[in-house]
Amino acid sequence: MKYCIGVDLGGTFIKTGIVDENGKLVSSIQLPTGVEANSTAVVMENIKNSITKLIESNKNLKISGIGVGVPGISDDNGNVTIFSNIKVFENYPMAKELNESFGVPVFVDNDANNAAIGEYLFGAAKGLKNFVVITIGTGIGGGVFINGHIYHGKIGSAGEIGHMIINADGRQCGCGNYGCWESYASAKAIVKKARSLIERGVKTSLIKYYPDEISAKVIGEEAQSGDRVAGEIFEEMCKYLGIGIANIVNIFNPEACIIGGGVSLAKVFLLEKLKFYTSLYAISYAYNEVEIKLAELGNNAGILGSAALAFTNI
Amino acid sequence: MKYCIGVDLGGTFIKTGIVDENGKLVSSIQLPTGVEANSTAVVMENIKNSITKLIESNKNLKISGIGVGVPGISDDNGNVTIFSNIKVFENYPMAKELNESFGVPVFVDNDANNAAIGEYLFGAAKGLKNFVVITIGTGIGGGVFINGHIYHGKIGSAGEIGHMIINADGRQCGCGNYGCWESYASAKAIVKKARSLIERGVKTSLIKYYPDEISAKVIGEEAQSGDRVAGEIFEEMCKYLGIGIANIVNIFNPEACIIGGGVSLAKVFLLEKLKFYTSLYAISYAYNEVEIKLAELGNNAGILGSAALAFTNI
Repeated sequence: MKYCIGVDLGGTFIKTGIVDENGKLVSSIQLPTGVEANSTAVVMENIKNSITKLIESNKNLKISGIGVGVPGISDDNGNVTIFSNIKVFENYPMAKELNESFGVPVFVDNDANNAAIGEYLFGAAKGLKNFVVITIGTGIGGGVFINGHIYHGKIGSAGEIGHMIINADGRQCGCGNYGCWESYASAKAIVKKARSLIERGVKTSLIKYYPDEISAKVIGEEAQSGDRVAGEIFEEMCKYLGIGIANIVNIFNPEACIIGGGVSLAKVFLLEKLKFYTSLYAISYAYNEVEIKLAELGNNAGILGSAALAFTNI
Repeated sequence: MKYCIGVDLGGTFIKTGIVDENGKLVSSIQLPTGVEANSTAVVMENIKNSITKLIESNKNLKISGIGVGVPGISDDNGNVTIFSNIKVFENYPMAKELNESFGVPVFVDNDANNAAIGEYLFGAAKGLKNFVVITIGTGIGGGVFINGHIYHGKIGSAGEIGHMIINADGRQCGCGNYGCWESYASAKAIVKKARSLIERGVKTSLIKYYPDEISAKVIGEEAQSGDRVAGEIFEEMCKYLGIGIANIVNIFNPEACIIGGGVSLAKVFLLEKLKFYTSLYAISYAYNEVEIKLAELGNNAGILGSAALAFTNI
């Protein structure tokens, strides 16, 4: 049995795990990323610590490679070129440094791309060649598979679907533009909408979570429990998700769109609505050929996807 | 010198030409498509006639292959599966029939895809591997190159960018949905807008073309001549074109977006505005890497692209 380490480098936490070649998470650890120090050295030290701890507590396992998922962009050599939260990471040779520390091959890619590789190797995309994994969390990320491989584009930023403009005359996004997909259809967007409605005095069962416990998860749950306000918020999100998925279906004519991230916890309740709205907005012959399905890797998708990156490259 | 025949099968005309391996159009002919008969046999006969006439008047040239561009979708074997204007063409083995008639290899693909292949072989995309050709005419078509090849998707419908929804709460498109890109930014869209304004009594130099001579070309010309109404119509189109191009830049991180079709006749006047608006709406690091440029194949792009399809496959 082969083992790789997957590192899910987030803005808040570093989640690291040892994964076997069947996609089973054998052991994992979570440490703070430490971005507040605004220091590359600090974050690299935290990454190395988490890997070292895992290796030490699993001495019987031979590690064949390390994969890292970053909220940013890397080049073909594992140099991080752009990093969402930590400016000091720009143009940082992350793969090289980790390789020197641990003596195994190291690969670095965007976290949404790794989510797609993970689903391809271990989850909902097994056997597919052309598909898009859409990760709906705080924002919306995309990983695009073309002819059996991740499509990176010129500098590795392909699949940036969260700021696809779907409603140009609509609401403003945090990025400054108007009508970005994730300003309508992300967890952040619907949490904001729920809070606004409560603040305007609208009666909803969501009030018991106000303000800090309102999440995409509870909005989905209250919608399913029959709260009309939560239902309306959820339905509107699904409509705009369907519009963006339709664009992706028209553009890529993919075999599948695979829906992951926190919002996908609503499972069938979400999926049925996404299929309905996508069918309204996509070109029919492309819609008829696409399977819209839930991602399968769940909470550890970040670790598993990063390990999958290593498995596909060693 | 090698020669191929390119057939540009449109809804109104069949444009056919002999093209040499350097992309020079040696001889061409235009016949009515004859869609009004609503008969596959009639259209096929017209295609064959045009090819036969070309061959007969150029008996000294040995033809190595035939490429056909259709306003629809074909499978890998040159069977037309979907054809925009002529329902009877669905699931028609066009390549096989033309091969039996003329005894040379025949290839069939979507016209927007062929436009991309033409630019790749003979025009603005020479040497590029990842780019999108955006053809802005009556509607908006897309041809996507990935890793040096046309990307077809599952059934060959990839690159259907004209009905990408960019303004979900906006105006209705002919397809029934709201906010499709081509309802804002095609020749048809701006001609419609110009006519509406004139009908509402707005004063514009475009009146001298009203109603039937108003075209994207004259709107561009009057805008450049200083007519404020034509200028406003043109500017708004460029803004919405920029929004859609920005989406494509974010999604594909391409080396280039190449702008063809009738609207591109406005050349630098258009291009400068498209660059400006795309820069406003695209993610900066993706925008910084993309070249937005005009297609180079001009009026005969359809014939040249279809011939290029043949040249890349023989």
